[in-house]
Amino acid sequence: MTYHRLPTHGRRPSTAGDTVPLDLSGIRRIVDIGLADFLDDRVHTAVDGRMPSEVPRLLKGFLEAGGKRLRPLLCVIGWHAGGGHGDIAPVLQVAASLELFHAFCLIHDDVMDGSRTRRGRPTVHRALADQHASGRSRGDAERFGTSGAILVGDLALSWSDELVHAAGLTAAQFTRVLPLIHEMRTEVMYGQYLDIAATGSPTGDLDRALAIARYKTAKYTVERPLHIGAALAGAPGELCAALSNFALPIGEAFQLRDDLLGIYGDPATTGKPCTDDLRDGKHTAVVAIALQRADRDQRQALTSLIGDADLDEDGLDRVRGILSITGARHAVEQMIQTRCEQADQALDQALFPPTAHHALRTLARSVTGRTA
Amino acid sequence: MTYHRLPTHGRRPSTAGDTVPLDLSGIRRIVDIGLADFLDDRVHTAVDGRMPSEVPRLLKGFLEAGGKRLRPLLCVIGWHAGGGHGDIAPVLQVAASLELFHAFCLIHDDVMDGSRTRRGRPTVHRALADQHASGRSRGDAERFGTSGAILVGDLALSWSDELVHAAGLTAAQFTRVLPLIHEMRTEVMYGQYLDIAATGSPTGDLDRALAIARYKTAKYTVERPLHIGAALAGAPGELCAALSNFALPIGEAFQLRDDLLGIYGDPATTGKPCTDDLRDGKHTAVVAIALQRADRDQRQALTSLIGDADLDEDGLDRVRGILSITGARHAVEQMIQTRCEQADQALDQALFPPTAHHALRTLARSVTGRTA
Repeated sequence: MTYHRLPTHGRRPSTAGDTVPLDLSGIRRIVDIGLADFLDDRVHTAVDGRMPSEVPRLLKGFLEAGGKRLRPLLCVIGWHAGGGHGDIAPVLQVAASLELFHAFCLIHDDVMDGSRTRRGRPTVHRALADQHASGRSRGDAERFGTSGAILVGDLALSWSDELVHAAGLTAAQFTRVLPLIHEMRTEVMYGQYLDIAATGSPTGDLDRALAIARYKTAKYTVERPLHIGAALAGAPGELCAALSNFALPIGEAFQLRDDLLGIYGDPATTGKPCTDDLRDGKHTAVVAIALQRADRDQRQALTSLIGDADLDEDGLDRVRGILSITGARHAVEQMIQTRCEQADQALDQALFPPTAHHALRTLARSVTGRTA
Repeated sequence: MTYHRLPTHGRRPSTAGDTVPLDLSGIRRIVDIGLADFLDDRVHTAVDGRMPSEVPRLLKGFLEAGGKRLRPLLCVIGWHAGGGHGDIAPVLQVAASLELFHAFCLIHDDVMDGSRTRRGRPTVHRALADQHASGRSRGDAERFGTSGAILVGDLALSWSDELVHAAGLTAAQFTRVLPLIHEMRTEVMYGQYLDIAATGSPTGDLDRALAIARYKTAKYTVERPLHIGAALAGAPGELCAALSNFALPIGEAFQLRDDLLGIYGDPATTGKPCTDDLRDGKHTAVVAIALQRADRDQRQALTSLIGDADLDEDGLDRVRGILSITGARHAVEQMIQTRCEQADQALDQALFPPTAHHALRTLARSVTGRTA
């Protein structure tokens, strides 16, 4: 067994002085190099022990294929917001662990949703099914793909733990950060559970759609990474509350944008087709509002088209039309706008150091306008 | 968030003196009560937070349905073997965490194998599919069952972590035990991966079948729980090596017995049908040996029957006949016997305290003769 601390390779991101903007792409690069090194090490260990080295290889390929590294960035920003100083290497390693945990979430999510592509590539379960098709029936290959992806995800979850434990945290940091990591895990898993339980039979229940967005995205993607970073810095409870005031609206806006991109986005940019969410019958805010406002014919059309596994481009256009005519799309755009303003106000009221303030403002802006 | 230490409810198992036999059923009872309390607490928290309380309820039902609690028992025995003294409560809580981790393994395993029953009840994914069938097509209900079971398993894995972290270990205990827990996780997940990769096209490769047995069972079920207990006691490396000398052969014997029970066991006792492993085409030692020894007709029959999703009682009898005629069944019985003798000898050579020695001998005996 090799315990691993992410090497910074002399690429330490700028942390000098509170007025210098954070080097976000530098942080991203260090996190990526660290994860690649960690997984390379797992490949070597697996080869030496005659264990299946394709598992760490797959994870490495998955991470290299893309991703915004939002959670690691927010973790580091949270550390700055909390007045963090001293050795940043342990913070970067915890940040990296969040990305490996996120890989776990996405891999299992793709299995659950039966998604075929992610980041413009075949999903892990599809890739495994294709790689192991030889000598197997198509059905058996699919089943191997699903089972293998479940295990690859399980290993990503376990290994994300190892990164935290080997980060070189002080006992005080460890004690503060661990309950937050546990909370984050339970929240996102419960959020996913609420999501799949509502999938297939969307209703006009907007509160439910927003609760799903809060747990599976706002808390998991934004609030908890910030809290974890702040906890590493030893920040007090009030600072975490101030971070939540920013994080929850911006996180909800992020999910609402994601819902719209799932229907209106450019597949070449988002890396996934526009029919996936609708075919699954995801219970999203835009669908809930449309169902609230639809007349009888529109409701009938939505009910028959959303959740239809064979939904085609014509059906997609019909759904898009109803979402526009009922004003549901516009309403969600407004909800995104309102939430971004709330987050902006929360930032103005908070007393974060300028570096953190500036980075959060930048990230918030990118959420409203993003296309992928 | 509530952190939890297992209450011993005054039911502290006897640890007085090294000559008193360990109260194995007392340990089992305390572990069970502790797990039930922990999950009840999760139910309350979920209800209060409007989260899906059916997840902890399902886990509680799963644990109550049966199981030998082998890993918790071995963890406590390992602690005694390592000369453990003082407060046993943290040891019992780590022991309980191993059972929750095991629940995670079984729930995901059942999804991967598509098993319909476990411990005489519907598996978690089947139960969820049935409970959520209303308003869904059969296919959608199945898919919800699978997705829900993946998430229930993920939560069991995360919560097993929380039990360890909240066990009240000393810093030294924590530092010793954590790498072993991480190793155990990676080993069993890799073992499962090897297992599914070999499933569907069994060959005469006995070494491969034994490697699968070692990783997915011997190390995970016997060796690591003993090591973890011994590490909690602060035992030196030589003692862990002595435990391995006992654990690996008895663990392999355990899996070999499991393979035979999967084909010859009484479904009323094992809680699962005799056709599951054969329908899946599991690459087991008994099948590998039979394929090595089979003549052309026998090999042809085995190849067509093993892995046949529609294998019926007649086919099962035909496979059983070939396993007997080729002597494969007998050879595996002998392998079990040899491994039990090796474990016995390892026990004789080790200098474990009499309490631990006696308990390990008892458990080893139960492995050879077990029927479920």
